[in-house]
Amino acid sequence: MSKSKVNKVKHINLNEIKDPSFLKNLSYSELDVLADDIRKEIIRCTAKNGGHLSSNLGVVELTIAIEHFFDLSKDKLIFDVGHQCYTHKILTGRPLENLRQTNGISGFQKIDESVYDCFDAGHSSTSLSAANGFAIARDLKGENYNVIALIGDGSISSGLAFEGLNNLATGKHKVVIIINDNGMSISKPVGALSKTFGKLSTAAGYNRIKYGYRRVMVRTKVGKKIYNLTLRIKNWFKRHLTSPNIFSDIGFAYIGPVDGHNIRKLEKAFKRVSNTEKSVVLHVCTTKGKGYELAENDIKGSWHGVAPFKVQDGEPLKSSKNVSWSKVFAELSLKEMEKHQDAFLISPATTDGAEIDEVLKQFLERSLDVGIAEEHAATLSGGLSRGGFHPIISIYSTFMQRAYDEIAHDMARTKANATILVDRAGLVGRDGETHQGIYDAAFLSTIPGVVITMPSSRKEAEFLYDESFNNHGVFAIRYPRATCLEEGKDEQLSFGKWLKLRESKSKKVAVIGVGHLVRELDHLVEKEGLDCTIYNALFINPIDEEALSSLKDYDKIVIYDAYSTQGGLVSLVTLKLSQMKFRGLISAYCVPNIFVKQATITEQLESFGLLPEQIIEHLK
Amino acid sequence: MSKSKVNKVKHINLNEIKDPSFLKNLSYSELDVLADDIRKEIIRCTAKNGGHLSSNLGVVELTIAIEHFFDLSKDKLIFDVGHQCYTHKILTGRPLENLRQTNGISGFQKIDESVYDCFDAGHSSTSLSAANGFAIARDLKGENYNVIALIGDGSISSGLAFEGLNNLATGKHKVVIIINDNGMSISKPVGALSKTFGKLSTAAGYNRIKYGYRRVMVRTKVGKKIYNLTLRIKNWFKRHLTSPNIFSDIGFAYIGPVDGHNIRKLEKAFKRVSNTEKSVVLHVCTTKGKGYELAENDIKGSWHGVAPFKVQDGEPLKSSKNVSWSKVFAELSLKEMEKHQDAFLISPATTDGAEIDEVLKQFLERSLDVGIAEEHAATLSGGLSRGGFHPIISIYSTFMQRAYDEIAHDMARTKANATILVDRAGLVGRDGETHQGIYDAAFLSTIPGVVITMPSSRKEAEFLYDESFNNHGVFAIRYPRATCLEEGKDEQLSFGKWLKLRESKSKKVAVIGVGHLVRELDHLVEKEGLDCTIYNALFINPIDEEALSSLKDYDKIVIYDAYSTQGGLVSLVTLKLSQMKFRGLISAYCVPNIFVKQATITEQLESFGLLPEQIIEHLK
Repeated sequence: MSKSKVNKVKHINLNEIKDPSFLKNLSYSELDVLADDIRKEIIRCTAKNGGHLSSNLGVVELTIAIEHFFDLSKDKLIFDVGHQCYTHKILTGRPLENLRQTNGISGFQKIDESVYDCFDAGHSSTSLSAANGFAIARDLKGENYNVIALIGDGSISSGLAFEGLNNLATGKHKVVIIINDNGMSISKPVGALSKTFGKLSTAAGYNRIKYGYRRVMVRTKVGKKIYNLTLRIKNWFKRHLTSPNIFSDIGFAYIGPVDGHNIRKLEKAFKRVSNTEKSVVLHVCTTKGKGYELAENDIKGSWHGVAPFKVQDGEPLKSSKNVSWSKVFAELSLKEMEKHQDAFLISPATTDGAEIDEVLKQFLERSLDVGIAEEHAATLSGGLSRGGFHPIISIYSTFMQRAYDEIAHDMARTKANATILVDRAGLVGRDGETHQGIYDAAFLSTIPGVVITMPSSRKEAEFLYDESFNNHGVFAIRYPRATCLEEGKDEQLSFGKWLKLRESKSKKVAVIGVGHLVRELDHLVEKEGLDCTIYNALFINPIDEEALSSLKDYDKIVIYDAYSTQGGLVSLVTLKLSQMKFRGLISAYCVPNIFVKQATITEQLESFGLLPEQIIEHLK
Repeated sequence: MSKSKVNKVKHINLNEIKDPSFLKNLSYSELDVLADDIRKEIIRCTAKNGGHLSSNLGVVELTIAIEHFFDLSKDKLIFDVGHQCYTHKILTGRPLENLRQTNGISGFQKIDESVYDCFDAGHSSTSLSAANGFAIARDLKGENYNVIALIGDGSISSGLAFEGLNNLATGKHKVVIIINDNGMSISKPVGALSKTFGKLSTAAGYNRIKYGYRRVMVRTKVGKKIYNLTLRIKNWFKRHLTSPNIFSDIGFAYIGPVDGHNIRKLEKAFKRVSNTEKSVVLHVCTTKGKGYELAENDIKGSWHGVAPFKVQDGEPLKSSKNVSWSKVFAELSLKEMEKHQDAFLISPATTDGAEIDEVLKQFLERSLDVGIAEEHAATLSGGLSRGGFHPIISIYSTFMQRAYDEIAHDMARTKANATILVDRAGLVGRDGETHQGIYDAAFLSTIPGVVITMPSSRKEAEFLYDESFNNHGVFAIRYPRATCLEEGKDEQLSFGKWLKLRESKSKKVAVIGVGHLVRELDHLVEKEGLDCTIYNALFINPIDEEALSSLKDYDKIVIYDAYSTQGGLVSLVTLKLSQMKFRGLISAYCVPNIFVKQATITEQLESFGLLPEQIIEHLK
């Protein structure tokens, strides 16, 4: 749009928006201006607070069009994943100023936050099943509203989305599925379905050719006959054997592709969508990162989720020399892949976040990004293992939940030797409830034979990674979303053994802790001159029974696990102590088994009394 | 085949088969006779031992054809689920005589049992991902073997299978996918994909019509021109827009449908399959239950998994007047669905096993069989709940593992009020490792706020089911694969409260137990005149802290949970006792956290010392 045009129309003060009803009074030109303004606000606030940039920039016009055309006071709009709802937040009276801050607004859709958030997520591919639920409820109650699921092309390749599609297609309960096709999932599009999208997008020319052919043929009588014949043949094929794409194959009405940055065209498509009786797929093409050049040109996915940055040049606001735990494991992965020619690295669409892009690039043959398909990643590992390879799965703790059954049934039960790199284990900070990595030690420990570990230093990380290749079955190594602060010394490490950080003289009090924070606690104990034994329990399962036996006559054992709920180290140690008939006191400090809201990790730890400074008070 | 023909060819002694190599020397007629003999043997042994009947009768010829054509000494044959591998067992030297018996052969493919079982399963839809793993391993190692996945039309509609398909389609690692289309999953085919199969099967006539059209048209010059034109148009459509089915849509070669009971035709198709470069889908049509009339005519799925029966009339060998726990909950479901007009019942393809067919029939509008799609079942429930309904999910404990993430992320986190009927909780007996229901209390307890319960009598079942509608969030009710032996009295039951079965005078020893077996223990204690307090912990999570507090000064607390691993009641009670600073002894009796092999449930309990008679010895 030209600048002069922009100047003619009024700007909306984004901070004064209460709900989307104001949209009804705006002209298309005004909506375009609003889109520009919202785009700038998203860039400004994400630069300030961090958050999801590319996905949000991609759907500014699409969200405005939806909320202009539909009536969200009754219609249900379900964002898949939810990391693209910033425009929606602004339009529903939630300015982005305090986005992702403690007590600020969440980075995702959130039921508790607004009546306009009818469902929420954080994990991918849930929107279709949820929409199905709303649609059934609506029709059974005889209510009258639209159910709209907005899902990206990356999310739709996950099994859950397919189950939703498969069930929606046959049901009589109408849902409007808007597929936001930006040719980019979190990392990059993977799998056959993404190719299908490519084909569909280029097929837009089909209509032009079809009508051109008709124009030419109907000019003569013979031509008309041939046209009619070919039309009948085409329709026969269409009816009996063929269909334009996978969606109509399984029974959906299909409309598209439509330019997702053109509000007028989108609304025309919405009109058609409103007129279908059955569930309909509207295919919308957008540009991820639209309007911020660095994000638009990003093919790696580095601008998907970002830390605070300078808008001018995209440089991070805080540059740190410390490397993240993800980076440590990426570097170690390069070594292990080199050392073990039978190692095979699998990532379910988190290569960028886990910082392993380089590993995949260097070991093209022996690595695979399977897309958002955690279940497949695990069962594939089972097959690879039986075929003679050692799979390494790099996965976020929270997304690993999707593969619980497959880790049990297809890896642990089949005695697969495999390494699982559990990234973002523990509290994750600003992503909030849907992304916490505090449950994995608990749920992995319910699966027979799974080794669960957590290093507190780079040296330990290296040892554990090495050790995972020594036929211990499924070997999980957890590490937090944090910088790795401790290089570690050359300590005597061996399988299943805890590391004694210090020994008490009086043998009265012992601490069994895990991860970097037990190292910090150890430093504080040193500083304060307290007398207690401290074990670094880098093996969470199996626990070190010998070490535990040595504490049998202590008065008090403190279990300190700031990275898990009680189902992890706390349960396992307490049960063993009970079996040992330990008669002393046990004090356990761990993350409560709740859904933990967004805040900084330090704030979250403090609120649960889990900072080393808080633990030391108990020891005193 | 006519009887006279059968008489001419030799019969193979099924008990003398060592491996499939003998097949190479058999003629097609002899293979047909073999098929007849194997079919009879499957009927005989399943009637004797119980097991999966329909699925196995459906693939007799298909399995023979595969093992005749391919070379299983190197080729990998992966049965999806594995409940259709009886013919394979016979052909690889494992007679069915002691099928599913303790120390006998398993009812599923089993890695430990034979070199011809390269992978195994029990849960559905894993074969494609596993096959993908083998194929990658083969190609990276430069080995040369076929990887064949045999998967049913019901299994392919699950999300995991789709993830596997989606990844296989784009990979360069060839897998032969044989889809066994019998129009029947465990219960009945559900979803859009099953309709697609229907279409494909009827499309067989297409080739005939196509070639007929050609024959007519090429007779004249004009006809030839029109034929060529229509051919070009057709190809254009095919190339640019359309494709014959969902499999070719996403990039597979597709062959079929082929008659799965015709060994000659199957092998012709195998030849074509062998010649493709990329992964190929071979669509085979079979009749489930083929050769046993009752099973062939069964549309409900009652002949899928069966208890021992009389071959002549199909009547069960042991008829019991006791009703199963499944039946109890089916009957209660009828009541609850009637009482709560906002209740909505969901089943992931286990309506027959859970005995709820009748409930679905009576409440057609307010119930849904979603097919093998446990994840969808849970997320759908999340949506239904937000839309104002109270979902009831009827699911087997072992299959619920698939929905771990969705129960956490889309139900518990979104505060959905829902009832989960956890069928086949605890040890399951002859189905063995892949079907044990001993983990759910452990893994559900890692999810914030999930209520976990287990009744010991019908009265308690009724109370718990009623109570699950009182806004407690996700409310799981576990019940075992067993008959319900206790009607129960009118006891004072309330949310979160354990039931005191007896009170000790000396207040030294207390038992906290769960399920029917704690009732049995209570009867034994009565009989033996022992002095101890016994609580029936029908609430596993949250536990009854008040009851537990009352035991604070006891010398010994016995936790008796024969239905779970230590992550269930044992962990939760032990942790709470530790928090209460309980100084007495804790003795815990529960199922060890291992993969438990097939045997009768009583044998399994006895081997772990979990029979009430064994517990009473400890109490003495």
